[in-house]
Amino acid sequence: MRIRVNGEACAQLPAQDRGLLYGDGLFETVLFRQGNAPLWPRHAERLLQGLARLRIAAPDMDALLAEAGGLCSDLDRAVVRISITRGSGERGYALPLQPVPTRILMAAAAPPPPRDWYVQGIRVRCCSLQLAAQPVLAGMKHLNRLEQVLARAEWTDAAIVEGLLGDREGHVVSATAANLFACVDGQLLTPALDRCGVAGVARAEVLARRDAAVRNITWEELMRAEEIFLTSSVRGIVPVRAVDAREFAVGAMTHSLQREWQALGLQESAGG
Amino acid sequence: MRIRVNGEACAQLPAQDRGLLYGDGLFETVLFRQGNAPLWPRHAERLLQGLARLRIAAPDMDALLAEAGGLCSDLDRAVVRISITRGSGERGYALPLQPVPTRILMAAAAPPPPRDWYVQGIRVRCCSLQLAAQPVLAGMKHLNRLEQVLARAEWTDAAIVEGLLGDREGHVVSATAANLFACVDGQLLTPALDRCGVAGVARAEVLARRDAAVRNITWEELMRAEEIFLTSSVRGIVPVRAVDAREFAVGAMTHSLQREWQALGLQESAGG
Repeated sequence: MRIRVNGEACAQLPAQDRGLLYGDGLFETVLFRQGNAPLWPRHAERLLQGLARLRIAAPDMDALLAEAGGLCSDLDRAVVRISITRGSGERGYALPLQPVPTRILMAAAAPPPPRDWYVQGIRVRCCSLQLAAQPVLAGMKHLNRLEQVLARAEWTDAAIVEGLLGDREGHVVSATAANLFACVDGQLLTPALDRCGVAGVARAEVLARRDAAVRNITWEELMRAEEIFLTSSVRGIVPVRAVDAREFAVGAMTHSLQREWQALGLQESAGG
Repeated sequence: MRIRVNGEACAQLPAQDRGLLYGDGLFETVLFRQGNAPLWPRHAERLLQGLARLRIAAPDMDALLAEAGGLCSDLDRAVVRISITRGSGERGYALPLQPVPTRILMAAAAPPPPRDWYVQGIRVRCCSLQLAAQPVLAGMKHLNRLEQVLARAEWTDAAIVEGLLGDREGHVVSATAANLFACVDGQLLTPALDRCGVAGVARAEVLARRDAAVRNITWEELMRAEEIFLTSSVRGIVPVRAVDAREFAVGAMTHSLQREWQALGLQESAGG
Protein backbone atom coordinates (compact mmCIF):
# COMPACT_ATOMS: atom_id res chain seq x y z
CA MET A 1 0.00 0.00 0.00
CA ARG A 2 1.32 3.43 -0.98
CA ILE A 3 -0.08 6.16 1.25
CA ARG A 4 0.09 9.94 1.12
CA VAL A 5 -1.41 12.23 3.74
CA ASN A 6 -1.59 15.86 2.58
CA GLY A 7 1.06 15.09 0.01
CA GLU A 8 3.52 13.55 2.44
CA ALA A 9 4.70 9.95 2.19
CA CYS A 10 3.15 9.19 5.53
CA ALA A 11 0.87 6.36 6.61
CA GLN A 12 -0.44 8.07 9.74
CA LEU A 13 -2.99 10.66 10.53
CA PRO A 14 -3.71 12.78 13.63
CA ALA A 15 -6.05 11.11 16.12
CA GLN A 16 -8.03 14.39 16.27
CA ASP A 17 -8.99 14.19 12.61
CA ARG A 18 -12.74 14.56 12.27
CA GLY A 19 -12.70 11.83 9.66
CA LEU A 20 -12.02 9.49 12.54
CA LEU A 21 -13.95 11.33 15.26
CA TYR A 22 -17.23 11.56 13.31
CA GLY A 23 -16.75 10.08 9.84
CA ASP A 24 -16.76 13.72 8.75
CA GLY A 25 -15.62 13.41 5.17
CA LEU A 26 -15.94 11.69 1.82
CA PHE A 27 -14.07 9.23 -0.32
CA GLU A 28 -13.66 8.01 -3.87
CA THR A 29 -12.35 4.65 -4.99
CA VAL A 30 -10.78 5.19 -8.38
CA LEU A 31 -9.60 2.58 -10.88
CA PHE A 32 -6.35 3.54 -12.63
CA ARG A 33 -4.83 1.83 -15.67
CA GLN A 34 -1.15 2.77 -16.08
CA GLY A 35 -1.79 5.96 -14.17
CA ASN A 36 -4.93 6.94 -16.09
CA ALA A 37 -8.45 7.00 -14.65
CA PRO A 38 -11.03 6.86 -17.46
CA LEU A 39 -13.92 7.77 -15.14
CA TRP A 40 -12.06 10.58 -13.35
CA PRO A 41 -14.41 13.39 -14.48
CA ARG A 42 -17.31 11.57 -12.83
CA HIS A 43 -15.35 10.91 -9.64
CA ALA A 44 -14.35 14.57 -9.53
CA GLU A 45 -17.92 15.71 -10.09
CA ARG A 46 -19.32 13.53 -7.31
CA LEU A 47 -16.54 14.47 -4.91
CA LEU A 48 -17.06 18.19 -5.53
CA GLN A 49 -20.82 17.86 -5.05
CA GLY A 50 -20.33 15.97 -1.79
CA LEU A 51 -17.77 18.45 -0.48
CA ALA A 52 -20.16 21.31 -1.24
CA ARG A 53 -23.02 19.52 0.55
CA LEU A 54 -20.81 18.92 3.61
CA ARG A 55 -19.27 22.42 3.33
CA ILE A 56 -15.72 21.11 3.13
CA ALA A 57 -13.30 23.12 0.99
CA ALA A 58 -12.42 21.36 -2.24
CA PRO A 59 -8.83 20.55 -3.16
CA ASP A 60 -7.33 21.47 -6.53
CA MET A 61 -8.84 18.66 -8.59
CA ASP A 62 -6.16 18.67 -11.32
CA ALA A 63 -3.45 18.41 -8.69
CA LEU A 64 -5.42 15.66 -6.97
CA LEU A 65 -5.64 13.64 -10.17
CA ALA A 66 -1.94 14.14 -10.84
CA GLU A 67 -1.06 13.04 -7.31
CA ALA A 68 -3.25 9.96 -7.51
CA GLY A 69 -2.03 8.99 -10.98
CA GLY A 70 1.58 9.54 -9.96
CA LEU A 71 1.15 7.10 -7.09
CA CYS A 72 0.33 4.24 -9.43
CA SER A 73 1.70 5.14 -12.86
CA ASP A 74 3.95 2.06 -12.81
CA LEU A 75 1.03 -0.28 -12.13
CA ASP A 76 -1.07 -1.79 -14.90
CA ARG A 77 -4.21 -1.85 -12.78
CA ALA A 78 -4.49 -0.06 -9.48
CA VAL A 79 -7.13 1.28 -7.15
CA VAL A 80 -6.58 4.59 -5.38
CA ARG A 81 -8.81 5.45 -2.49
CA ILE A 82 -8.98 9.22 -2.06
CA SER A 83 -10.41 10.44 1.24
CA ILE A 84 -11.06 14.08 2.07
CA THR A 85 -11.94 14.86 5.67
CA ARG A 86 -12.80 18.12 7.38
CA GLY A 87 -9.42 17.91 9.15
CA SER A 88 -8.67 18.27 12.84
CA GLY A 89 -11.05 19.96 15.18
CA GLU A 90 -11.77 20.86 18.76
CA ARG A 91 -14.02 18.55 20.75
CA GLY A 92 -17.65 18.78 19.66
CA TYR A 93 -19.69 18.59 16.50
CA ALA A 94 -19.51 22.31 15.63
CA LEU A 95 -17.55 23.00 12.47
CA PRO A 96 -14.00 24.24 13.13
CA LEU A 97 -13.63 27.98 12.58
CA GLN A 98 -10.66 27.56 10.27
CA PRO A 99 -10.84 24.02 8.99
CA VAL A 100 -7.91 22.57 7.06
CA PRO A 101 -9.15 19.49 5.22
CA THR A 102 -7.09 16.32 5.26
CA ARG A 103 -6.33 14.56 1.98
CA ILE A 104 -5.48 10.87 2.17
CA LEU A 105 -4.49 8.78 -0.84
CA MET A 106 -4.05 5.03 -0.60
CA ALA A 107 -2.92 3.22 -3.74
CA ALA A 108 -2.51 -0.50 -4.31
CA ALA A 109 -2.21 -2.85 -7.26
CA ALA A 110 -5.60 -4.42 -7.93
CA PRO A 111 -5.72 -7.64 -9.92
CA PRO A 112 -8.91 -7.92 -11.99
CA PRO A 113 -11.80 -9.90 -10.57
CA PRO A 114 -12.21 -13.51 -11.80
CA ARG A 115 -13.18 -13.82 -15.47
CA ASP A 116 -16.08 -16.07 -14.45
CA TRP A 117 -17.81 -13.16 -12.77
CA TYR A 118 -18.20 -11.42 -16.11
CA VAL A 119 -19.06 -14.48 -18.19
CA GLN A 120 -21.25 -16.54 -15.86
CA GLY A 121 -22.38 -13.81 -13.49
CA ILE A 122 -22.15 -13.71 -9.71
CA ARG A 123 -24.36 -15.00 -6.95
CA VAL A 124 -25.76 -12.39 -4.58
CA ARG A 125 -28.00 -12.50 -1.55
CA CYS A 126 -30.66 -10.23 -0.09
CA CYS A 127 -29.41 -8.62 3.12
CA SER A 128 -31.70 -8.34 6.11
CA LEU A 129 -30.33 -4.89 6.98
CA GLN A 130 -32.48 -2.12 5.54
CA LEU A 131 -30.90 1.19 4.61
CA ALA A 132 -32.14 4.21 6.56
CA ALA A 133 -33.75 7.06 4.65
CA GLN A 134 -31.68 10.23 5.03
CA PRO A 135 -32.03 12.62 2.08
CA VAL A 136 -29.39 14.95 3.51
CA LEU A 137 -26.74 12.26 3.08
CA ALA A 138 -28.20 10.24 0.19
CA GLY A 139 -26.07 9.76 -2.90
CA MET A 140 -22.80 10.87 -1.28
CA LYS A 141 -19.87 8.53 -0.78
CA HIS A 142 -19.30 9.76 2.76
CA LEU A 143 -17.32 8.10 5.52
CA ASN A 144 -20.35 6.95 7.58
CA ARG A 145 -20.48 3.40 6.29
CA LEU A 146 -21.53 1.27 9.23
CA GLU A 147 -24.65 0.12 7.38
CA GLN A 148 -22.49 -1.34 4.63
CA VAL A 149 -20.10 -2.90 7.14
CA LEU A 150 -22.96 -4.59 9.00
CA ALA A 151 -24.66 -5.71 5.78
CA ARG A 152 -21.43 -7.22 4.46
CA ALA A 153 -20.99 -9.01 7.78
CA GLU A 154 -24.25 -10.90 7.24
CA TRP A 155 -22.54 -13.63 5.21
CA THR A 156 -19.17 -15.33 4.92
CA ASP A 157 -19.87 -17.84 2.10
CA ALA A 158 -17.20 -16.98 -0.49
CA ALA A 159 -19.52 -18.14 -3.27
CA ILE A 160 -21.75 -15.14 -2.53
CA VAL A 161 -20.02 -12.11 -4.00
CA GLU A 162 -22.41 -9.34 -3.02
CA GLY A 163 -25.47 -8.53 -0.94
CA LEU A 164 -28.46 -6.51 -2.06
CA LEU A 165 -29.81 -3.82 0.25
CA GLY A 166 -33.29 -2.41 0.34
CA ASP A 167 -34.94 0.47 2.09
CA ARG A 168 -37.63 0.29 4.76
CA GLU A 169 -40.40 0.83 2.20
CA GLY A 170 -39.86 -2.36 0.24
CA HIS A 171 -37.55 -1.14 -2.54
CA VAL A 172 -34.20 -2.52 -3.60
CA VAL A 173 -31.52 0.19 -3.49
CA SER A 174 -28.06 -1.21 -4.29
CA ALA A 175 -25.46 -3.80 -3.41
CA THR A 176 -23.14 -3.16 -0.46
CA ALA A 177 -20.41 -1.78 -2.73
CA ALA A 178 -22.01 -1.48 -6.16
CA ASN A 179 -25.08 -0.05 -7.84
CA LEU A 180 -27.76 -2.13 -9.46
CA PHE A 181 -29.53 -2.15 -12.82
CA ALA A 182 -32.32 -4.45 -13.97
CA CYS A 183 -34.14 -4.95 -17.24
CA VAL A 184 -37.81 -5.34 -16.42
CA ASP A 185 -40.42 -5.75 -19.17
CA GLY A 186 -37.81 -4.62 -21.66
CA GLN A 187 -36.93 -1.42 -19.83
CA LEU A 188 -33.62 -0.68 -18.12
CA LEU A 189 -34.18 0.46 -14.52
CA THR A 190 -31.96 1.60 -11.67
CA PRO A 191 -33.10 2.60 -8.18
CA ALA A 192 -33.60 6.25 -7.29
CA LEU A 193 -31.01 7.29 -4.68
CA ASP A 194 -32.60 10.40 -3.22
CA ARG A 195 -33.19 8.88 0.23
CA CYS A 196 -30.36 6.38 0.62
CA GLY A 197 -27.55 4.73 -1.27
CA VAL A 198 -24.41 5.95 -3.01
CA ALA A 199 -24.69 7.37 -6.52
CA GLY A 200 -21.86 5.47 -8.17
CA VAL A 201 -19.72 6.81 -10.98
CA ALA A 202 -20.15 3.64 -13.04
CA ARG A 203 -23.91 4.03 -12.59
CA ALA A 204 -23.62 7.61 -13.87
CA GLU A 205 -21.65 6.37 -16.87
CA VAL A 206 -24.31 3.78 -17.69
CA LEU A 207 -27.03 6.42 -17.37
CA ALA A 208 -25.12 8.63 -19.83
CA ARG A 209 -24.93 5.76 -22.33
CA ARG A 210 -28.36 4.16 -22.05
CA ASP A 211 -31.92 5.27 -21.76
CA ALA A 212 -32.79 4.07 -18.24
CA ALA A 213 -35.57 4.90 -15.82
CA VAL A 214 -34.37 6.07 -12.39
CA ARG A 215 -37.15 5.22 -9.98
CA ASN A 216 -38.14 3.12 -6.98
CA ILE A 217 -37.98 -0.59 -7.74
CA THR A 218 -39.76 -3.15 -5.62
CA TRP A 219 -38.21 -6.50 -4.74
CA GLU A 220 -41.02 -8.16 -6.68
CA GLU A 221 -40.09 -6.24 -9.83
CA LEU A 222 -36.44 -7.14 -9.36
CA MET A 223 -37.24 -10.81 -9.05
CA ARG A 224 -38.99 -10.89 -12.40
CA ALA A 225 -36.24 -9.00 -14.23
CA GLU A 226 -34.95 -10.36 -17.54
CA GLU A 227 -31.42 -9.44 -16.52
CA ILE A 228 -29.69 -7.84 -13.54
CA PHE A 229 -26.20 -6.40 -13.35
CA LEU A 230 -24.13 -4.52 -10.82
CA THR A 231 -21.96 -1.52 -11.65
CA SER A 232 -18.80 -0.47 -9.87
CA SER A 233 -15.95 1.82 -10.83
CA VAL A 234 -13.51 -0.90 -9.78
CA ARG A 235 -15.31 -4.03 -11.02
CA GLY A 236 -17.18 -2.66 -14.00
CA ILE A 237 -20.32 -4.36 -15.34
CA VAL A 238 -20.93 -7.56 -13.38
CA PRO A 239 -23.94 -9.72 -14.27
CA VAL A 240 -25.99 -11.29 -11.50
CA ARG A 241 -26.71 -14.97 -12.13
CA ALA A 242 -28.64 -15.57 -8.92
CA VAL A 243 -30.35 -13.60 -6.18
CA ASP A 244 -30.62 -16.12 -3.37
CA ALA A 245 -32.35 -19.12 -5.01
CA ARG A 246 -33.75 -17.23 -8.01
CA GLU A 247 -31.61 -17.56 -11.16
CA PHE A 248 -31.17 -15.01 -13.93
CA ALA A 249 -29.70 -15.14 -17.41
CA VAL A 250 -26.87 -12.87 -18.50
CA GLY A 251 -28.56 -10.67 -21.07
CA ALA A 252 -27.86 -8.57 -24.11
CA MET A 253 -27.83 -5.25 -22.24
CA THR A 254 -25.19 -6.57 -19.88
CA HIS A 255 -23.08 -7.86 -22.76
CA SER A 256 -23.22 -4.64 -24.74
CA LEU A 257 -22.21 -2.54 -21.74
CA GLN A 258 -19.39 -4.96 -20.92
CA ARG A 259 -17.99 -4.46 -24.41
CA GLU A 260 -18.07 -0.70 -23.94
CA TRP A 261 -16.35 -1.04 -20.56
CA GLN A 262 -13.65 -3.12 -22.19
CA ALA A 263 -13.16 -0.48 -24.84
CA LEU A 264 -12.78 2.15 -22.11
CA GLY A 265 -10.10 0.05 -20.45
CA LEU A 266 -12.29 -0.35 -17.38
CA GLN A 267 -12.77 -4.08 -17.52
CA GLU A 268 -10.70 -7.06 -18.69
CA SER A 269 -13.33 -9.72 -19.22
CA ALA A 270 -16.77 -9.91 -20.73
CA GLY A 271 -19.32 -12.52 -21.59
CA GLY A 272 -21.44 -12.72 -24.70
CA MET B 1 -4.50 17.24 24.54
CA ARG B 2 -2.99 14.02 25.88
CA ILE B 3 -3.37 11.16 23.43
CA ARG B 4 -2.71 7.45 23.67
CA VAL B 5 -3.15 5.02 20.79
CA ASN B 6 -3.11 1.39 21.93
CA GLY B 7 -1.34 2.46 25.10
CA GLU B 8 1.42 4.38 23.35
CA ALA B 9 1.96 8.11 23.82
CA CYS B 10 1.24 8.69 20.18
CA ALA B 11 -1.07 11.18 18.50
CA GLN B 12 -1.27 9.37 15.18
CA LEU B 13 -3.06 6.42 13.80
CA PRO B 14 -2.69 4.31 10.65
CA ALA B 15 -4.53 5.70 7.63
CA GLN B 16 -5.93 2.18 7.02
CA ASP B 17 -7.81 2.16 10.30
CA ARG B 18 -11.43 1.27 9.66
CA GLY B 19 -12.46 3.92 12.14
CA LEU B 20 -11.38 6.39 9.50
CA LEU B 21 -12.26 4.34 6.40
CA TYR B 22 -15.88 3.62 7.44
CA GLY B 23 -16.52 5.08 10.88
CA ASP B 24 -16.30 1.45 12.00
CA GLY B 25 -16.18 1.85 15.75
CA LEU B 26 -17.61 3.46 18.87
CA PHE B 27 -16.70 6.12 21.38
CA GLU B 28 -17.41 7.32 24.88
CA THR B 29 -16.93 10.82 26.25
CA VAL B 30 -16.22 10.45 29.95
CA LEU B 31 -16.10 13.15 32.62
CA PHE B 32 -13.31 12.64 35.14
CA ARG B 33 -12.88 14.48 38.45
CA GLN B 34 -9.34 14.07 39.82
CA GLY B 35 -9.02 10.83 37.88
CA ASN B 36 -12.38 9.39 38.93
CA ALA B 37 -15.35 8.87 36.63
CA PRO B 38 -18.57 8.60 38.67
CA LEU B 39 -20.61 7.32 35.70
CA TRP B 40 -17.98 4.84 34.51
CA PRO B 41 -20.12 1.70 35.04
CA ARG B 42 -22.72 3.14 32.67
CA HIS B 43 -20.10 4.12 30.08
CA ALA B 44 -18.62 0.63 30.30
CA GLU B 45 -22.00 -1.01 29.94
CA ARG B 46 -22.93 1.00 26.85
CA LEU B 47 -19.53 0.50 25.27
CA LEU B 48 -19.66 -3.27 25.81
CA GLN B 49 -23.17 -3.47 24.36
CA GLY B 50 -22.14 -1.47 21.31
CA LEU B 51 -19.00 -3.53 20.75
CA ALA B 52 -21.07 -6.71 20.92
CA ARG B 53 -23.59 -5.31 18.42
CA LEU B 54 -20.77 -4.36 16.02
CA ARG B 55 -18.89 -7.60 16.75
CA ILE B 56 -15.73 -5.81 17.85
CA ALA B 57 -13.68 -7.50 20.57
CA ALA B 58 -13.93 -5.68 23.89
CA PRO B 59 -10.85 -4.39 25.69
CA ASP B 60 -10.17 -5.16 29.36
CA MET B 61 -12.53 -2.62 30.90
CA ASP B 62 -10.68 -2.31 34.22
CA ALA B 63 -7.45 -1.61 32.39
CA LEU B 64 -9.27 0.87 30.16
CA LEU B 65 -10.59 2.78 33.16
CA ALA B 66 -7.14 2.78 34.78
CA GLU B 67 -5.56 4.07 31.58
CA ALA B 68 -8.15 6.82 31.15
CA GLY B 69 -8.00 7.89 34.78
CA GLY B 70 -4.21 7.86 34.77
CA LEU B 71 -4.22 10.25 31.81
CA CYS B 72 -6.02 12.94 33.81
CA SER B 73 -5.46 12.18 37.52
CA ASP B 74 -3.72 15.55 37.98
CA LEU B 75 -6.69 17.47 36.51
CA ASP B 76 -9.62 18.62 38.62
CA ARG B 77 -12.06 18.29 35.76
CA ALA B 78 -11.23 16.51 32.52
CA VAL B 79 -12.96 14.85 29.62
CA VAL B 80 -11.51 11.69 28.13
CA ARG B 81 -12.78 10.56 24.76
CA ILE B 82 -12.30 6.82 24.38
CA SER B 83 -12.65 5.46 20.85
CA ILE B 84 -12.53 1.79 19.95
CA THR B 85 -12.35 0.95 16.25
CA ARG B 86 -12.25 -2.36 14.42
CA GLY B 87 -8.60 -1.64 13.59
CA SER B 88 -6.86 -1.82 10.24
CA GLY B 89 -8.30 -3.79 7.39
CA GLU B 90 -7.94 -4.72 3.77
CA ARG B 91 -9.90 -2.70 1.23
CA GLY B 92 -13.62 -3.47 1.34
CA TYR B 93 -16.43 -3.63 3.85
CA ALA B 94 -15.94 -7.29 4.80
CA LEU B 95 -14.78 -7.76 8.38
CA PRO B 96 -11.05 -8.48 8.69
CA LEU B 97 -10.31 -12.15 9.37
CA GLN B 98 -8.14 -11.36 12.37
CA PRO B 99 -9.13 -7.89 13.51
CA VAL B 100 -7.03 -6.09 16.10
CA PRO B 101 -9.14 -3.24 17.50
CA THR B 102 -7.60 0.19 17.92
CA ARG B 103 -7.96 1.98 21.26
CA ILE B 104 -7.64 5.75 21.23
CA LEU B 105 -7.75 7.91 24.35
CA MET B 106 -7.81 11.69 24.17
CA ALA B 107 -7.79 13.59 27.46
CA ALA B 108 -8.07 17.32 28.04
CA ALA B 109 -8.89 19.65 30.92
CA ALA B 110 -12.52 20.70 30.65
CA PRO B 111 -13.60 23.85 32.48
CA PRO B 112 -17.20 23.64 33.65
CA PRO B 113 -19.89 25.22 31.48
CA PRO B 114 -21.10 28.72 32.49
CA ARG B 115 -23.00 28.83 35.80
CA ASP B 116 -25.85 30.65 34.00
CA TRP B 117 -26.66 27.54 32.00
CA TYR B 118 -27.65 25.72 35.15
CA VAL B 119 -29.44 28.59 36.86
CA GLN B 120 -31.23 30.36 34.01
CA GLY B 121 -31.29 27.53 31.50
CA ILE B 122 -30.10 27.53 27.91
CA ARG B 123 -31.67 28.54 24.64
CA VAL B 124 -32.03 25.80 22.05
CA ARG B 125 -33.42 25.64 18.54
CA CYS B 126 -35.24 23.05 16.48
CA CYS B 127 -33.00 21.69 13.74
CA SER B 128 -34.38 21.12 10.27
CA LEU B 129 -32.35 17.92 9.84
CA GLN B 130 -34.39 14.85 10.73
CA LEU B 131 -32.65 11.78 12.11
CA ALA B 132 -32.91 8.67 9.97
CA ALA B 133 -34.54 5.58 11.46
CA GLN B 134 -32.02 2.74 11.68
CA PRO B 135 -32.79 0.28 14.47
CA VAL B 136 -29.56 -1.64 13.82
CA LEU B 137 -27.52 1.40 14.88
CA ALA B 138 -29.94 3.14 17.25
CA GLY B 139 -28.77 3.86 20.77
CA MET B 140 -25.08 3.26 20.07
CA LYS B 141 -22.48 5.99 20.30
CA HIS B 142 -20.84 4.91 17.06
CA LEU B 143 -18.46 6.87 14.87
CA ASN B 144 -21.00 7.62 12.09
CA ARG B 145 -21.94 11.10 13.24
CA LEU B 146 -22.50 13.12 10.07
CA GLU B 147 -26.11 13.78 11.03
CA GLN B 148 -24.97 15.48 14.22
CA VAL B 149 -22.26 17.41 12.38
CA LEU B 150 -24.75 18.71 9.82
CA ALA B 151 -27.36 19.53 12.45
CA ARG B 152 -24.82 21.46 14.54
CA ALA B 153 -23.79 23.35 11.41
CA GLU B 154 -27.31 24.74 11.05
CA TRP B 155 -26.58 27.67 13.38
CA THR B 156 -23.68 29.82 14.51
CA ASP B 157 -25.43 32.14 17.01
CA ALA B 158 -23.44 31.62 20.22
CA ALA B 159 -26.54 32.41 22.28
CA ILE B 160 -28.06 29.13 21.04
CA VAL B 161 -26.35 26.36 22.99
CA GLU B 162 -27.99 23.29 21.48
CA GLY B 163 -30.27 22.09 18.70
CA LEU B 164 -33.12 19.63 19.03
CA LEU B 165 -33.45 16.83 16.51
CA GLY B 166 -36.55 14.94 15.53
CA ASP B 167 -37.28 11.88 13.48
CA ARG B 168 -39.19 11.71 10.20
CA GLU B 169 -42.43 10.74 11.96
CA GLY B 170 -42.84 13.95 13.92
CA HIS B 171 -41.19 13.03 17.23
CA VAL B 172 -38.46 14.86 19.09
CA VAL B 173 -35.48 12.55 19.74
CA SER B 174 -32.59 14.41 21.38
CA ALA B 175 -30.24 17.36 21.15
CA THR B 176 -27.17 17.10 18.92
CA ALA B 177 -24.95 16.08 21.86
CA ALA B 178 -27.33 15.51 24.76
CA ASN B 179 -30.49 13.62 25.62
CA LEU B 180 -33.78 15.28 26.44
CA PHE B 181 -36.33 15.00 29.23
CA ALA B 182 -39.61 16.86 29.57
CA CYS B 183 -42.27 17.03 32.26
CA VAL B 184 -45.65 16.93 30.51
CA ASP B 185 -48.89 16.91 32.48
CA GLY B 186 -46.89 16.14 35.58
CA GLN B 187 -45.13 13.12 34.10
CA LEU B 188 -41.42 12.87 33.32
CA LEU B 189 -40.86 11.72 29.73
CA THR B 190 -37.83 10.95 27.57
CA PRO B 191 -37.88 9.86 23.93
CA ALA B 192 -37.60 6.19 23.00
CA LEU B 193 -34.32 5.57 21.17
CA ASP B 194 -35.02 2.30 19.40
CA ARG B 195 -34.91 3.78 15.89
CA CYS B 196 -32.45 6.67 16.19
CA GLY B 197 -30.48 8.66 18.73
CA VAL B 198 -27.75 7.86 21.23
CA ALA B 199 -28.74 6.36 24.58
CA GLY B 200 -26.73 8.61 26.86
CA VAL B 201 -25.21 7.54 30.17
CA ALA B 202 -26.61 10.59 32.00
CA ARG B 203 -30.04 9.67 30.58
CA ALA B 204 -29.59 6.15 31.97
CA GLU B 205 -28.65 7.60 35.35
CA VAL B 206 -31.76 9.77 35.41
CA LEU B 207 -33.90 6.77 34.44
CA ALA B 208 -32.42 4.82 37.35
CA ARG B 209 -33.28 7.65 39.77
CA ARG B 210 -36.71 8.75 38.58
CA ASP B 211 -39.89 7.14 37.38
CA ALA B 212 -39.98 8.29 33.76
CA ALA B 213 -41.89 7.11 30.71
CA VAL B 214 -39.69 6.19 27.74
CA ARG B 215 -41.83 6.67 24.66
CA ASN B 216 -42.33 8.64 21.48
CA ILE B 217 -42.88 12.34 22.18
CA THR B 218 -44.39 14.66 19.60
CA TRP B 219 -43.16 18.21 19.10
CA GLU B 220 -46.59 19.42 20.20
CA GLU B 221 -46.23 17.60 23.53
CA LEU B 222 -42.75 19.00 24.00
CA MET B 223 -43.96 22.54 23.41
CA ARG B 224 -46.51 22.32 26.20
CA ALA B 225 -44.07 20.81 28.72
CA GLU B 226 -43.89 22.29 32.21
CA GLU B 227 -40.12 21.88 32.17
CA ILE B 228 -37.47 20.60 29.79
CA PHE B 229 -33.89 19.67 30.53
CA LEU B 230 -30.99 18.13 28.66
CA THR B 231 -28.71 15.45 30.07
CA SER B 232 -25.08 14.90 29.21
CA SER B 233 -22.28 13.01 30.91
CA VAL B 234 -20.05 16.07 30.48
CA ARG B 235 -22.54 18.88 31.14
CA GLY B 236 -24.90 17.22 33.57
CA ILE B 237 -28.49 18.45 34.01
CA VAL B 238 -29.02 21.55 31.89
CA PRO B 239 -32.42 23.24 31.92
CA VAL B 240 -33.90 24.57 28.69
CA ARG B 241 -35.26 28.10 29.04
CA ALA B 242 -36.35 28.48 25.43
CA VAL B 243 -37.01 26.32 22.38
CA ASP B 244 -36.90 28.83 19.53
CA ALA B 245 -39.40 31.53 20.60
CA ARG B 246 -41.23 29.40 23.17
CA GLU B 247 -40.06 29.98 26.78
CA PHE B 248 -39.99 27.47 29.62
CA ALA B 249 -39.50 27.75 33.36
CA VAL B 250 -36.76 25.90 35.20
CA GLY B 251 -38.74 23.44 37.29
CA ALA B 252 -38.56 21.39 40.46
CA MET B 253 -37.60 18.13 38.72
CA THR B 254 -34.63 19.86 37.10
CA HIS B 255 -33.54 21.40 40.41
CA SER B 256 -33.73 18.16 42.34
CA LEU B 257 -31.69 16.27 39.74
CA GLN B 258 -29.14 19.07 39.62
CA ARG B 259 -28.61 18.72 43.38
CA GLU B 260 -28.04 14.99 42.99
CA TRP B 261 -25.58 15.61 40.16
CA GLN B 262 -23.70 18.03 42.39
CA ALA B 263 -23.55 15.42 45.13
CA LEU B 264 -22.12 12.93 42.63
CA GLY B 265 -19.42 15.41 41.67
CA LEU B 266 -20.78 15.54 38.13
CA GLN B 267 -21.81 19.18 38.08
CA GLU B 268 -20.54 22.42 39.67
CA SER B 269 -23.56 24.67 39.44
CA ALA B 270 -27.29 24.34 40.02
CA GLY B 271 -30.31 26.55 40.13
CA GLY B 272 -33.14 26.41 42.65
